[in-house]
Amino acid sequence: METYLDCIPCFVRQALDAVRFVTDDEAVQAEVLRKVLRAASEMDMRMAPPAMGQKIHRLIRQCTGQGDPYREVKDRFNRFAMALYPDLTLRVARSSDPLATAVRLAIAGNVIDFGVNSTLTEADVRGVIERAMSAPLRGSVDELRDAAAEARDILFLADNAGEIVFDRVLIETLPTEKITVVVKAQPVINDATIQDARAAGLTDRVAVMDNGSDAPGTLLGECSETFRRRFHQADMVIAKGQGNYETLSDAERSVFFILMAKCPVIAGHLGCEQGSLIIQRTAASPPAIRPVGAAAGPDSETEQ
Amino acid sequence: METYLDCIPCFVRQALDAVRFVTDDEAVQAEVLRKVLRAASEMDMRMAPPAMGQKIHRLIRQCTGQGDPYREVKDRFNRFAMALYPDLTLRVARSSDPLATAVRLAIAGNVIDFGVNSTLTEADVRGVIERAMSAPLRGSVDELRDAAAEARDILFLADNAGEIVFDRVLIETLPTEKITVVVKAQPVINDATIQDARAAGLTDRVAVMDNGSDAPGTLLGECSETFRRRFHQADMVIAKGQGNYETLSDAERSVFFILMAKCPVIAGHLGCEQGSLIIQRTAASPPAIRPVGAAAGPDSETEQ
Repeated sequence: METYLDCIPCFVRQALDAVRFVTDDEAVQAEVLRKVLRAASEMDMRMAPPAMGQKIHRLIRQCTGQGDPYREVKDRFNRFAMALYPDLTLRVARSSDPLATAVRLAIAGNVIDFGVNSTLTEADVRGVIERAMSAPLRGSVDELRDAAAEARDILFLADNAGEIVFDRVLIETLPTEKITVVVKAQPVINDATIQDARAAGLTDRVAVMDNGSDAPGTLLGECSETFRRRFHQADMVIAKGQGNYETLSDAERSVFFILMAKCPVIAGHLGCEQGSLIIQRTAASPPAIRPVGAAAGPDSETEQ
Repeated sequence: METYLDCIPCFVRQALDAVRFVTDDEAVQAEVLRKVLRAASEMDMRMAPPAMGQKIHRLIRQCTGQGDPYREVKDRFNRFAMALYPDLTLRVARSSDPLATAVRLAIAGNVIDFGVNSTLTEADVRGVIERAMSAPLRGSVDELRDAAAEARDILFLADNAGEIVFDRVLIETLPTEKITVVVKAQPVINDATIQDARAAGLTDRVAVMDNGSDAPGTLLGECSETFRRRFHQADMVIAKGQGNYETLSDAERSVFFILMAKCPVIAGHLGCEQGSLIIQRTAASPPAIRPVGAAAGPDSETEQ
């Protein structure tokens, strides 16, 4: 999807929240905000919103000199989610529809998003889990089940640290031998990297690779050639979270999106209430006209 | 007061709301937003927030080609408030403390602010009036009463159209012969100009002048020499609304501010809850260091 005018004030708000999260230095906060305003004034609105998120968080890392400012919060939410893991798997095992329950839990985990909410607490996550167990789920779990049964290889695009443990619970209800989990190549907000896949115990269970990029979503033009090839060739792609929806909703291939519609613009785009639990398969879109000079990202690495 | 970092996302949000209020043309909306972002990226944070409001609304008038885009809404709220006027005066006349009731009503009228809320309805205003009659009022009405009794001349800085009718009710409980009401010289948002003072029936009751400026507040450096002289020489200055508080809270002279603290930054600056009804006298501040090259505004006109 493109960037909407409503995204612009939100970028500025999120940039201020984010730089305050990373540093107490008001001069640095002001510097980042000025640079974000300048970048936003020049942005290409045809790009998906995560293109701006990528710029903002590069600026924050550059201006604060912190290469991975959310490392501590990522570790904390990984530990928190790993402590919940036995309970989560028990809920799935005891469910009359384990896959549906695992999808709900994976969507609940999608609330661990420090791009949208930089003041999230563990209590918030517990509340969302309970709500997600009974809230309406829009979309077809059976379609996901059938596609996963038929597919020979499945690419699972993970979203955030902490959330990736909830994703593990979902992945373990699917045919794991077919699955490759994809994480970000470099830190951006609290998006999961290979380190988080390891902390979630995923690297022992499934193939894990990175996408070559530091965008908080999947900007294909910025991803590695290896990832892009896998993305286009996989029988099935499952993509977690808003950032992946924003960047891949118009992709040339069909994608299963699993997310909570946390922002009004995305809820509007999906035609649902804000806060809805969504599983949505998109049809393949016709090839888009690529902007001239869209460079390919560096190559990525695969880890078993 | 200076501009806070928290004001920046709010400027961008308000600019989008405002340009959408003025035009449906998305290309113009995007153009204004880009220019606002650029201006915000370069702004002098030592200036009061209305300096940015002035820039934003100049851009909107320029890019839409509409010299007074809020004229219709100003007329509508003037008519609405004039229809309420008999009831408002009755409430004051029947009150055990007419001045206190008039102050409460004037503060209720301060909700008619299309800078803060571009979707305000007449029902909203009715609700605020009822709330204002019983909500806590912070500050001393007696101090206002005593100062008005002692003063030989009183400058009353009006705020918005519609609200100015509520101000008339307050003004009529004060010694009207001493009062000069000050309005904006050119349209900005729904701020009252001479046309609104006339619509409120104020030009028949008191002296009315403009301040020479189109800022949504009182940026003294931009006001006319005539107004500045009156401002510094008056025995008493009463200033309505947030914009005047933001621009005059550090003035070299004492000012009585009457306002509703609608935004969290101003509530924080005043040390009160958001939404509070405030009457506050500030002490004169020592002369500030003036920015180099601060030009005086054009001369203003006085109308009896």
